[in-house]
Amino acid sequence: MKAVHWNGQRLELNTAYPTPKADAQMALVRVHLAGICSTDLQIFQGYMGFTGVPGHEFVGEVIQGPTALLGQRVVGEINFACGQCPTCAKGLGRHCPTRRVMGILQADGTFADYVAVPVANLHPVPAQVSDEAAVFTEPLAAAFEILEQVHLQPTDDVVVFGDGKLGLLCAQVLQLTGASVHLVGRHPRKLALLRPLDIHTILLPDQPPGQADVVVEATGSAEGLQQAMETVRPRGTLVLKSTVAAEHHLSLAPLVIHEVTVIGSRCGRFPPALQALANDRISVIPLIERVYALTAVSDAVAHASRRGALKVLLCPMMSGVS
Amino acid sequence: MKAVHWNGQRLELNTAYPTPKADAQMALVRVHLAGICSTDLQIFQGYMGFTGVPGHEFVGEVIQGPTALLGQRVVGEINFACGQCPTCAKGLGRHCPTRRVMGILQADGTFADYVAVPVANLHPVPAQVSDEAAVFTEPLAAAFEILEQVHLQPTDDVVVFGDGKLGLLCAQVLQLTGASVHLVGRHPRKLALLRPLDIHTILLPDQPPGQADVVVEATGSAEGLQQAMETVRPRGTLVLKSTVAAEHHLSLAPLVIHEVTVIGSRCGRFPPALQALANDRISVIPLIERVYALTAVSDAVAHASRRGALKVLLCPMMSGVS
Repeated sequence: MKAVHWNGQRLELNTAYPTPKADAQMALVRVHLAGICSTDLQIFQGYMGFTGVPGHEFVGEVIQGPTALLGQRVVGEINFACGQCPTCAKGLGRHCPTRRVMGILQADGTFADYVAVPVANLHPVPAQVSDEAAVFTEPLAAAFEILEQVHLQPTDDVVVFGDGKLGLLCAQVLQLTGASVHLVGRHPRKLALLRPLDIHTILLPDQPPGQADVVVEATGSAEGLQQAMETVRPRGTLVLKSTVAAEHHLSLAPLVIHEVTVIGSRCGRFPPALQALANDRISVIPLIERVYALTAVSDAVAHASRRGALKVLLCPMMSGVS
Repeated sequence: MKAVHWNGQRLELNTAYPTPKADAQMALVRVHLAGICSTDLQIFQGYMGFTGVPGHEFVGEVIQGPTALLGQRVVGEINFACGQCPTCAKGLGRHCPTRRVMGILQADGTFADYVAVPVANLHPVPAQVSDEAAVFTEPLAAAFEILEQVHLQPTDDVVVFGDGKLGLLCAQVLQLTGASVHLVGRHPRKLALLRPLDIHTILLPDQPPGQADVVVEATGSAEGLQQAMETVRPRGTLVLKSTVAAEHHLSLAPLVIHEVTVIGSRCGRFPPALQALANDRISVIPLIERVYALTAVSDAVAHASRRGALKVLLCPMMSGVS
């Protein structure tokens, strides 16, 4: 099959990569679309020391697996848990200590014709959700994860820092609660996407309102944290949504003095995201910047790496003009 | 009156310091005992840029104030709130943006014969609580603050880092919930104080149990945070109990990956602490290392500054042998 391979140094298209095997636990999925995520770009900088087929956002069709799923359009959760340890028993397979993670840790990912995914991780895609929307399920689930961790009040003032893909999704999800949401970013074009949705937008260097009840840090930069800390009110909540590999140099004393709650937030369950897409509650299609053939992966990654780029998708079934 | 004064450079005993005035809002309290806290020692290193009479832990007797309080033994909350702003209206006077803080921020404190305290901040001390126990109300309230912020489960595994005064109080308070509490410290003498209370103690460099549900960082050192982060389980809670003025240099990515909740925790309400002292639920007397006359403040501060020192008290009514 065709697959993109990251060997720790270079990203290479391999047209004779071994097709993964299905078995009782793993289904084989033909990839319709795969999304390029900021985490993928970090992996190409050495994050996680991953080698293999990258990619963890996808929508596809089951071609080998349980009869009930055959031919179904599916999306799949990315943490491959053991299902047997105490952490898994608590329903926290996303934190299973021996988990593999699709395209990130010891498991080949979705930048390929086919990907093997645990049957337990698959979710059928409702008919009314297009492939282009369904491929956002994974990042949208990460945004919904905030609502699983924080009990927002309808009167809360919320500030989201970062107008990247994740920030735009987080702002929309938090807006569903009735809270008043402000998105702070650097790109007028991206902020404009949220304005029709009644989300307040603030273009830096304009200042966000201070004393926010809930602040979401989704800039992916070390500086973002400092600004987020200055925006949250005493006894407020600060959600860290991006894994900044760089070290922070900051005093945490303000967190203690103001008794701030800081919540690390990563992957989410898929059902809330799929339901929101099925009910057309979240606008994802405007976030798509371009779809590339898998064979044009170098161009696609270069595009996704541009400052301010939104979602770039790979389509293995499309013939490429590179 | 006698008072100790910190001028930003030196601590000096002043035998003719102006006695504070009582008025409709402020009562005048004769100090029976005042505690020296680590925050005081930090102030003598320049923390908060405070000048004035230091000290915020005390027990005393109302000598001017509302009739109902005259002659009463009292303790007093340390944040002098405006009582009129939105933060105060939420019951969060401890976070009032224009608050003064006794002995810490724009208000003279308790290392003196008399201290002026807002009537609203005073709490009568139950008869069965001795002065020596009551003077622990403020730090004990700070320990109880954790229970106001975190809903502990009786099956939780809790690890407290730091066998200083605050760590010893936190471990005892958390033990009240039925949770299994481990205290990690460097001083066999201090760990021994908790062993009769069925609190597990771990002498460094022995390792605490990993995967703790709740970890309390009360070491007051920047390194403590790193170890605390390594001890908390995924989706667990890390309580920051000490204001480390120094900058931290660390990656917060593990907080995101493991979805840890970090809770800054500072001052607490007094009633839970007073009730626990009245019911003899917390052992504080063994934490007293020595009582000094106020006139021997230099010796007292030197003693409190010794590595591993427990609680050192000042008594203005005692005649000093310095």
